Amino acid sequence: MASKFGQNLSISVFGQSHGKAIGVEMDGVPAGEPIDMEKLQAFLDRRKPGQGAMTTRRKETDIPEFLSGVQDDVTCGFPICAVIQNSDQHSHDYSNLRTNPRPSHADYTASLRYGEARDMRGGGHFSGRLTAPICVAGGICLQMLERRGIYVGAHLQQVYNVKDEQFPLYPTKELFDEVAARKPATINPEAGAKMEQAIVEASKDLDSVGGIIECAIIGFPAGLGDPMFDGIENRLAQALFGIPAVKGLEFGNGFAGTDLRGSENNDPFILKDGKIATETNHSGGINGGISNGMPIVFRVALKPTSSIAKKQRTVNLETMEETDLIVKGRHDPCVAVRAVPVVEAVAASVVTDILLGTGKF
Amino acid sequence: MASKFGQNLSISVFGQSHGKAIGVEMDGVPAGEPIDMEKLQAFLDRRKPGQGAMTTRRKETDIPEFLSGVQDDVTCGFPICAVIQNSDQHSHDYSNLRTNPRPSHADYTASLRYGEARDMRGGGHFSGRLTAPICVAGGICLQMLERRGIYVGAHLQQVYNVKDEQFPLYPTKELFDEVAARKPATINPEAGAKMEQAIVEASKDLDSVGGIIECAIIGFPAGLGDPMFDGIENRLAQALFGIPAVKGLEFGNGFAGTDLRGSENNDPFILKDGKIATETNHSGGINGGISNGMPIVFRVALKPTSSIAKKQRTVNLETMEETDLIVKGRHDPCVAVRAVPVVEAVAASVVTDILLGTGKF
Amino acid sequence: MASKFGQNLSISVFGQSHGKAIGVEMDGVPAGEPIDMEKLQAFLDRRKPGQGAMTTRRKETDIPEFLSGVQDDVTCGFPICAVIQNSDQHSHDYSNLRTNPRPSHADYTASLRYGEARDMRGGGHFSGRLTAPICVAGGICLQMLERRGIYVGAHLQQVYNVKDEQFPLYPTKELFDEVAARKPATINPEAGAKMEQAIVEASKDLDSVGGIIECAIIGFPAGLGDPMFDGIENRLAQALFGIPAVKGLEFGNGFAGTDLRGSENNDPFILKDGKIATETNHSGGINGGISNGMPIVFRVALKPTSSIAKKQRTVNLETMEETDLIVKGRHDPCVAVRAVPVVEAVAASVVTDILLGTGKF
Amino acid sequence: MASKFGQNLSISVFGQSHGKAIGVEMDGVPAGEPIDMEKLQAFLDRRKPGQGAMTTRRKETDIPEFLSGVQDDVTCGFPICAVIQNSDQHSHDYSNLRTNPRPSHADYTASLRYGEARDMRGGGHFSGRLTAPICVAGGICLQMLERRGIYVGAHLQQVYNVKDEQFPLYPTKELFDEVAARKPATINPEAGAKMEQAIVEASKDLDSVGGIIECAIIGFPAGLGDPMFDGIENRLAQALFGIPAVKGLEFGNGFAGTDLRGSENNDPFILKDGKIATETNHSGGINGGISNGMPIVFRVALKPTSSIAKKQRTVNLETMEETDLIVKGRHDPCVAVRAVPVVEAVAASVVTDILLGTGKF
Repeated sequence: MASKFGQNLSISVFGQSHGKAIGVEMDGVPAGEPIDMEKLQAFLDRRKPGQGAMTTRRKETDIPEFLSGVQDDVTCGFPICAVIQNSDQHSHDYSNLRTNPRPSHADYTASLRYGEARDMRGGGHFSGRLTAPICVAGGICLQMLERRGIYVGAHLQQVYNVKDEQFPLYPTKELFDEVAARKPATINPEAGAKMEQAIVEASKDLDSVGGIIECAIIGFPAGLGDPMFDGIENRLAQALFGIPAVKGLEFGNGFAGTDLRGSENNDPFILKDGKIATETNHSGGINGGISNGMPIVFRVALKPTSSIAKKQRTVNLETMEETDLIVKGRHDPCVAVRAVPVVEAVAASVVTDILLGTGKF
Repeated sequence: MASKFGQNLSISVFGQSHGKAIGVEMDGVPAGEPIDMEKLQAFLDRRKPGQGAMTTRRKETDIPEFLSGVQDDVTCGFPICAVIQNSDQHSHDYSNLRTNPRPSHADYTASLRYGEARDMRGGGHFSGRLTAPICVAGGICLQMLERRGIYVGAHLQQVYNVKDEQFPLYPTKELFDEVAARKPATINPEAGAKMEQAIVEASKDLDSVGGIIECAIIGFPAGLGDPMFDGIENRLAQALFGIPAVKGLEFGNGFAGTDLRGSENNDPFILKDGKIATETNHSGGINGGISNGMPIVFRVALKPTSSIAKKQRTVNLETMEETDLIVKGRHDPCVAVRAVPVVEAVAASVVTDILLGTGKF
Repeated sequence: MASKFGQNLSISVFGQSHGKAIGVEMDGVPAGEPIDMEKLQAFLDRRKPGQGAMTTRRKETDIPEFLSGVQDDVTCGFPICAVIQNSDQHSHDYSNLRTNPRPSHADYTASLRYGEARDMRGGGHFSGRLTAPICVAGGICLQMLERRGIYVGAHLQQVYNVKDEQFPLYPTKELFDEVAARKPATINPEAGAKMEQAIVEASKDLDSVGGIIECAIIGFPAGLGDPMFDGIENRLAQALFGIPAVKGLEFGNGFAGTDLRGSENNDPFILKDGKIATETNHSGGINGGISNGMPIVFRVALKPTSSIAKKQRTVNLETMEETDLIVKGRHDPCVAVRAVPVVEAVAASVVTDILLGTGKF
Repeated sequence: MASKFGQNLSISVFGQSHGKAIGVEMDGVPAGEPIDMEKLQAFLDRRKPGQGAMTTRRKETDIPEFLSGVQDDVTCGFPICAVIQNSDQHSHDYSNLRTNPRPSHADYTASLRYGEARDMRGGGHFSGRLTAPICVAGGICLQMLERRGIYVGAHLQQVYNVKDEQFPLYPTKELFDEVAARKPATINPEAGAKMEQAIVEASKDLDSVGGIIECAIIGFPAGLGDPMFDGIENRLAQALFGIPAVKGLEFGNGFAGTDLRGSENNDPFILKDGKIATETNHSGGINGGISNGMPIVFRVALKPTSSIAKKQRTVNLETMEETDLIVKGRHDPCVAVRAVPVVEAVAASVVTDILLGTGKF
């Protein structure tokens, strides 16, 4: 199913950018899990637009209303449905995109897939706005994980040609909190400042830039996951490519490991505080699809925002003639900035799903 | 489920490296599809070991026996079960790995996940040998796709620090056939020769090297796939990370697109022979999870073989002391070489699965 | 997943009886399907309570609000979320049921499954009220099926010891419409009058009665469905047992066929208007899980409403002592009456799901 | 997928009656489960044909060979594949059925679904022979359940018009063992003798008879299962309708409960040995889809064998003319007799699947 993922915890996202509401349905959250609504809202606010020059000027209040599954801020074991009303929509900005599809956006493929009835105002169901309900689900999972000593954190490792440091071998909850408090979310604030500069420059040029987000999951028990097609990597991969603009994913050393020798890339087993650990973590915490007790570490590549105000070439779908296109609307010049909590949300959802299947939750 | 994938075509892989047999069960192949058994065998032979200095000296004849679902070399619509008998096993080579896990291999995580009863002789169910049944399934899909004008081809784009050319904007079936005939499978034979040299050198040093495989799917109809979590990227990703040693995946420009600007990375729509196409294919043929009619292009990163003969550090699981490890056995010094047809097999299986769901098969 | 069904069309039901809202999320409805909202409302009204002495005096307006997936009363291809606000709740009626579980209701099992956090006010997620969103989804499917010449109809074949006629060998859309217009929905109005009498008598005695609903699907193409565990019977069965109070299901002759001989129970093939048909339809239109072109016919058994006002024995979960229980609240004396459109809704949803998988939709 | 079921334990059945082999693939069996091969064979022998006048004269040795997932008779946690070679096939008996389909058999629907390539020799994949691999999977589950104090037993409650007693309120393992040792498997041996007589008479008349199998599961923990579409009833129903000839299913009182009043049908809660139980078990151990701690009890209706030697009417698919049909071959005159262990096998598989999802296994 298109807009769902999860085996033990099913997360379904619905809504179009300019429809009545967007939302999420979660089936499988155990009963008795308290939801700290302020903390959830604070998490959602991390992906909120309107945070200065780096993000779109659209206003999205993004306050979820829980229709079911939660009573007195505690889950009751039944499916949770949370809804965010839409507002501040400028649908007229999108009228010409129906015939003149944006390069590298879903406008054209949606016209093929859904035909005349497609609702692509504001990007429809493909809009980055749909990551808000993903964050509602993920924010709930993050709280459930934290109560079990599992923490998920992410940072902007790269924007355009500006690089942040990588996570250390053992990232901590404190580091995650520090990074989350920064705008943009970097380990090194100076890198963040340079990233902001690169974004603002692109924006001035009516252009956009891409980025890489690194994410780590700590405290996840060793020995969970499955071989072959249902390992931790497979399940994270299936879900992470659901975040708009994600075009690449690597675990541990990933692509960088391909020009190493095995003796350089392998992670020797060592004893650390009497327990088995690895000296390095080029495997990203996963061997054979199964967690080895080290932090689970992966990186996602997000392409530059495809909606740019710069003049581009496209084809008019009605006249079937090549034409110029100027995209109006208020788009983020770098989707990676606001995608940091979205990556955390998806990662938290997937590992919660895995944990729920083990009965160890 | 661990060793299965597919929604309309379910492919289940079973077997351990040193068990009686390995095999694959396919549920969902339509009735009336002829299987050219010689062609299938030729495809399987492309991943066969024993092809000179680049691969292991193990012998695997890998001739599948069809127990069900096929009558007179034509599918009858019922589940297909194909079995490959095991032979030429040197199980004693693996006895010390039970207590002394190989760095970056699944030995340790399997001990946590399966306990004493695990059968990890020869790598058990995690062994690269299990890619043979994947190729049986994929080889059948490749034949079904070809009859519908869809072709899948892959090549070694990189081994260690040696790079092959990338696929051109419009790869052809002829190019796929040329590449498939080469050992190793490169576009540029000189790159292949250098790769072989790098592999042989690593092998002499009792070491291994990694690599990158680029794969392209041509002739796939535009307008197929789904948004969010069930797009073509999601489904390929879930399956491709099931290939042993795969640690990274990118579509189109992937990670390289992150340090570009939108105006550079976007693919302008153009008219080509009266039809809509894109000038470049940085999107890898997919927008919003849906095919746009351009070749579907992706790259997978395979880490260097973790089983190397060089001395490594590990921890003895019984004595809980650090110790040295010398891995015996006959391992490929570069798993990427023989993984080229495996990537094709998985890609073919996934797009067949997608096509079967559309009723356009 | 608990509250979901469907492979190509996923239908997820959420909400508790006394929560903010109940609703349904549908993923997989094709784009471009018009929804006749008046017709949908008329269908929902058939399960509405407050229809005289046969049903509860609760008022439920049950007007769905479409939050997503529908634009200008036409589906746009994205997930549909429809919500029905709750109102007219008398939660205090249920306060004693938390410790004193109703016999044969889910009060006790929910206490085990969900613990203290369970929200069982008004029956929680187990309430018959949750059949309203099922009817929203099914009502949309019914309209899609009708446009393809497929019709679904059901009637009360039995209430307590009063029996209606069975459907004829070839039920028609006209018959379905006639039956749907009757209260209760019977083929023979006299049977309906006697049923009403039996229900009213039970109600006066503070008691309840059960019933049997017969359902037929006409116009469904021959040759669809799958063998073994994914046949039409399997898929209908999995979904139909999701209707509260359903405890039995049979296709065609069902249980009655067990004391026949094969020569009596078999359906001889004949020619009818030059096409293959069967002389009788003891198979209920399905052989080997696959439709044979005859009407698909099945019957579901619904137990008497478990919530009765008559004094019953139960155990107090806190004191762990046996005690008497008087159930307050306004319950239907015969759930089968209002379940007729619910059975149609589930049947329509399942066959739509099957059709969508064939690409013949 | 057609020939699969299970969420945490996936069971896939493959093979055609007259193909090379039939078998089963099980994914999800935990590591470290011993398999008592003699006990498994004894279970398989209960469904073996060739047991006197009640069953077919075909010989099926049905000895499974384990290709994977089992080492030294202990599961290793990887997918299990077990294969049974086919033999003693009289394919020529079936040649005329290709054009002249048997009434109420899958011959005709298979011709529509699979076309010319169908392999329906001996009933193909629809054959009752395919219940042998189901019993291999179920027999393994039965052993795993027994080690956890859960037992599954079934008996022939009815054949034609001869009825056996129903299970008592609390069936015991001893009763299950007694019943399993009888031929046919009845509680009351006299009922069994009369059933045999009815079957032999039908057989002499070149005819067949149907039957009802009652099954009970004891020791299953209370509080497991899910509401709506994924309850114990839903999951058993989906799987049980996969047994050839099953046309009806009821839990607890089932259809008999429909002409009772609620006060008669409800199960009052009582204290039994200090624990909560119910005075009667009309609910069949399940409320709201969730186990209540009482035995889980259900009944399946199996139609009379459709393959009878008596002359029947059919239509020749090539000439499209009505014609007479005499079915050759060696068919059971009452499939219910040998289906008793099959029902146990499916029930055991389903509850194992449910238990595995709870982490309480």
